[in-house]
Amino acid sequence: MLILGFESSAKSASVALCDENGLISQYFQNSGLTHSRTLLPMAEDMLKNLGLTIGDIDLIAVSCGPGSFTGVRIGVSVVKGLAWACDKPVCGVSTLLAMAYNGVCAHEGSIICCVMDARREQFYNALFIMRDGIPVRLCEDRAIGADKLVEDIKNINKPIFIVGDGASLCYNTLNNFEFRTVLAPEPMRYQTAWGVCMAARREPQQSVHELLPVYLRLSQAERERQERIFGK
Amino acid sequence: MLILGFESSAKSASVALCDENGLISQYFQNSGLTHSRTLLPMAEDMLKNLGLTIGDIDLIAVSCGPGSFTGVRIGVSVVKGLAWACDKPVCGVSTLLAMAYNGVCAHEGSIICCVMDARREQFYNALFIMRDGIPVRLCEDRAIGADKLVEDIKNINKPIFIVGDGASLCYNTLNNFEFRTVLAPEPMRYQTAWGVCMAARREPQQSVHELLPVYLRLSQAERERQERIFGK
Repeated sequence: MLILGFESSAKSASVALCDENGLISQYFQNSGLTHSRTLLPMAEDMLKNLGLTIGDIDLIAVSCGPGSFTGVRIGVSVVKGLAWACDKPVCGVSTLLAMAYNGVCAHEGSIICCVMDARREQFYNALFIMRDGIPVRLCEDRAIGADKLVEDIKNINKPIFIVGDGASLCYNTLNNFEFRTVLAPEPMRYQTAWGVCMAARREPQQSVHELLPVYLRLSQAERERQERIFGK
Repeated sequence: MLILGFESSAKSASVALCDENGLISQYFQNSGLTHSRTLLPMAEDMLKNLGLTIGDIDLIAVSCGPGSFTGVRIGVSVVKGLAWACDKPVCGVSTLLAMAYNGVCAHEGSIICCVMDARREQFYNALFIMRDGIPVRLCEDRAIGADKLVEDIKNINKPIFIVGDGASLCYNTLNNFEFRTVLAPEPMRYQTAWGVCMAARREPQQSVHELLPVYLRLSQAERERQERIFGK
């Protein structure tokens, strides 16, 4: 089964093609250029270089959040457009689950702590445990403060492997508490379209109309509107 | 300094763009299509997507072997052509050094054992030690049998992190001898153009005419010719 994956939930963007044996191709960039300009051409170039068309793809996967609101919207919109036009099934996967696949660098049985910097003193976070090379979910995706995260993992007596763009910040925080933490090395720290494809192999397929972005929090504009109407 | 890197020494092919902060973009494929068809379009598409031209590049790097003779020839030829036409300096880096950068997954002070399957019961191999996140060379690139490799590492009392397309075969061999071996996880096992760029940052620049493939052994055609002329 050919899965075309899209990842644009943070600063970098990537597209990947995987089958049941793993990675066939990945095109990654972290240039600071906007995803709305780079993402779709990357997919188009990649398929062309492989001698494929979108018609050859069996499933289109995308990281549907949490993450940068704009980035998540671009990824989900691109995939909705493509999948609707070409009548393909889709799979929206959690950004945090996709990055948990980088935990293949960690030892079996390790905890994978996925953290994105959600600003406003919060992390987007989820915890997984590595079993047979697959991250198994231990809690739902959430937006939490460092104190709640410390509370949640304080009784875990396993190595904790930290990935994500909040990894460095989280690592420094957790290290004050003598946890057995390992900061993922730079090339394995961030979510990629490869992780999106890997996650999509084990998640349910959706129709294009079911695919929705998952923000976990209100956008700044919505928050400010609510504050204006209802007070803080 | 913008470095454009090419890697085509084995089954997969990749191009990458790095600067002093690390990876800007990488385009990887492991499709089985010939590198002579895929490599140059990947570089062209990548630069175009980044809004760059070859004129913006400061250094062109390539893994110049050891590896598949055909693959190494394609990579080196592409880089010679590009660099000559555009009057750019080049840097040919050892394929084994480039893949040693995957050792960022290993702990500080670990030994990085780079192994490619050289056929005819030999590995292309070099050993490195991880110091401050940089692989430091412990021996020259060579083509050796498993017995010689075991001999060389039997007195090393450190974890040995094995990378390369011969990693799985080598891991099974070394495990018979109770070494503290770690098989690199699949996404970090193989050489990439990112590793080529990382290695090129610390290797001397060359003029295009100095760049040569490094085969380490005679090709099959040369070997058979010598056998015909001089006997086995």
